[in-house]
Amino acid sequence: MHTSPRPAPELAVSEWLNTDTPLTLAGLRGQVVVIEAFQMLCPGCVAHGLPQAQRVQTAFGRDLVVLGLHTVFEHHAAMTPVALAAFLHEYRITFPVAVDTAVAGDGIPETMRRYRLRGTPSLLLVDRAGRLRANAFGQIDDLSLGATLARLIDEPVPTSKETEA
Amino acid sequence: MHTSPRPAPELAVSEWLNTDTPLTLAGLRGQVVVIEAFQMLCPGCVAHGLPQAQRVQTAFGRDLVVLGLHTVFEHHAAMTPVALAAFLHEYRITFPVAVDTAVAGDGIPETMRRYRLRGTPSLLLVDRAGRLRANAFGQIDDLSLGATLARLIDEPVPTSKETEA
Amino acid sequence: MHTSPRPAPELAVSEWLNTDTPLTLAGLRGQVVVIEAFQMLCPGCVAHGLPQAQRVQTAFGRDLVVLGLHTVFEHHAAMTPVALAAFLHEYRITFPVAVDTAVAGDGIPETMRRYRLRGTPSLLLVDRAGRLRANAFGQIDDLSLGATLARLIDEPVPTSKETEA
Amino acid sequence: MHTSPRPAPELAVSEWLNTDTPLTLAGLRGQVVVIEAFQMLCPGCVAHGLPQAQRVQTAFGRDLVVLGLHTVFEHHAAMTPVALAAFLHEYRITFPVAVDTAVAGDGIPETMRRYRLRGTPSLLLVDRAGRLRANAFGQIDDLSLGATLARLIDEPVPTSKETEA
Repeated sequence: MHTSPRPAPELAVSEWLNTDTPLTLAGLRGQVVVIEAFQMLCPGCVAHGLPQAQRVQTAFGRDLVVLGLHTVFEHHAAMTPVALAAFLHEYRITFPVAVDTAVAGDGIPETMRRYRLRGTPSLLLVDRAGRLRANAFGQIDDLSLGATLARLIDEPVPTSKETEA
Repeated sequence: MHTSPRPAPELAVSEWLNTDTPLTLAGLRGQVVVIEAFQMLCPGCVAHGLPQAQRVQTAFGRDLVVLGLHTVFEHHAAMTPVALAAFLHEYRITFPVAVDTAVAGDGIPETMRRYRLRGTPSLLLVDRAGRLRANAFGQIDDLSLGATLARLIDEPVPTSKETEA
Repeated sequence: MHTSPRPAPELAVSEWLNTDTPLTLAGLRGQVVVIEAFQMLCPGCVAHGLPQAQRVQTAFGRDLVVLGLHTVFEHHAAMTPVALAAFLHEYRITFPVAVDTAVAGDGIPETMRRYRLRGTPSLLLVDRAGRLRANAFGQIDDLSLGATLARLIDEPVPTSKETEA
Repeated sequence: MHTSPRPAPELAVSEWLNTDTPLTLAGLRGQVVVIEAFQMLCPGCVAHGLPQAQRVQTAFGRDLVVLGLHTVFEHHAAMTPVALAAFLHEYRITFPVAVDTAVAGDGIPETMRRYRLRGTPSLLLVDRAGRLRANAFGQIDDLSLGATLARLIDEPVPTSKETEA
């Protein structure tokens, strides 16, 4: 038996950096979207997750869309949007980064909850039809990721009718 | 315009290590074949090429065939088959390795000539139809290689008629 | 000709982390002091300077004192003490860290000015007599640093009279 | 209680590479000597031991003497002097390298026996008085090694009388 992949939940974003125009998964339908969920003070994100996202951007260029998602679930007072902006500048991160919307009375932000992320870094892959095809916590090797991305890129662009569901 | 890829020249092999049965590209027709051309005393091969070939073997398992090709074109007295066997043992290289056939009166061995290799390490990719799809000298990044391999793996197995040419 | 090393200027500190007791160079007289001047959002500090300071602490244990100095000269709104505390926690930095005192109307903090630091990371070495023996910007190799530290450690502890100057 | 370090056994050498003049520890008396015992097909030697010996040569220049010692105790047919010469050329190793003298009927060469080496890589440190001050198997961190070397370098050159014993 085989479960068909569920639709990727929409991003809940309180603020965007590195883009003038707010983005939505709905608006990116038809494209492969790579989302690097990270926290700026997470050593594994700085050492592995974010450099890999930058390598994906370099290797696959216009064939997909790379987004960062700042899912702050600890040290909230430290990882503010102004601190994040400085971080992105210093680490030369140029892809659009969404600040995951904080939830009043809860440390876990909204998008992180929707995707049930286990922590950071997490890599989310959304296919051209807007379905969540991978939700991977921790380190992923580049060879396997490259293979997965090629296959997602090579899938046909769905007709508008198919993506409406 | 588009040139169709040429058939991969057959390997000229004087000796095999890590396999009881000699292999040929003809006999591997139908499978994707990854050939790491190296010399055991080439620092770039030891640091980059061979570890990448081992990662390919780990990541893609039975979906393709990884071969080493020992293309000795310098220090011939040093890089003998007995030295190669010790090298493979020490570096825990388990895929089959072919010793490229020496050519009398020429430092460049036969398979290296057939493929016009520029040096070592070189990575050769042969598709299911036996055509040479990549001949890359130097370092290749894992993301791009993973993508290329996935696409070769996903190509249909040719019917026996197609592969006879 | 040879200039004798100048006394290391006292640290100007607005806040200490990782220590209950504020420290001063005067109070540490008699000991070799290694000061890693850094900013938490400086990639070179995270990748090289701070790990080296941690290795120094591990390798030389009680033979010297390792201190961090958070010399914020850019992105002031991002690199606050609360953010620094989270950073130290996440990166498992356990040596005492001083927050360099901000100077009203100037982006460069007070200790950074006193030492005329060129940027971060910078490594400052203070000998048992309280004299500044090295002020190095950028990466320093571990072999040379180990040699320098051994020589500073092996210098005799000055009598109280000598250190008063 | 404290054992005084024993005299470093003389090297038993069948052949030298990277030097026109054969060397002896007796002839190097008065200098600090760093001996990297290795095998050319030992992955730990290639990845760690030999690069560290090269860094020592770079960092300490004329303050000490770096020697390689090729202690072949396995794969004897592979690690011949001609293969070693090719290896040294390819890996850009420029310090003098001694081939440890083979012992008839025993796989362990003579110098390796005299020093009771546990394997490769091993680092041997000989002080100005010709005494063996370290015999370390495996990886050693650069900070500690730099400290040890500085202290050996800073020891007084013994008078000829002292070194005769």
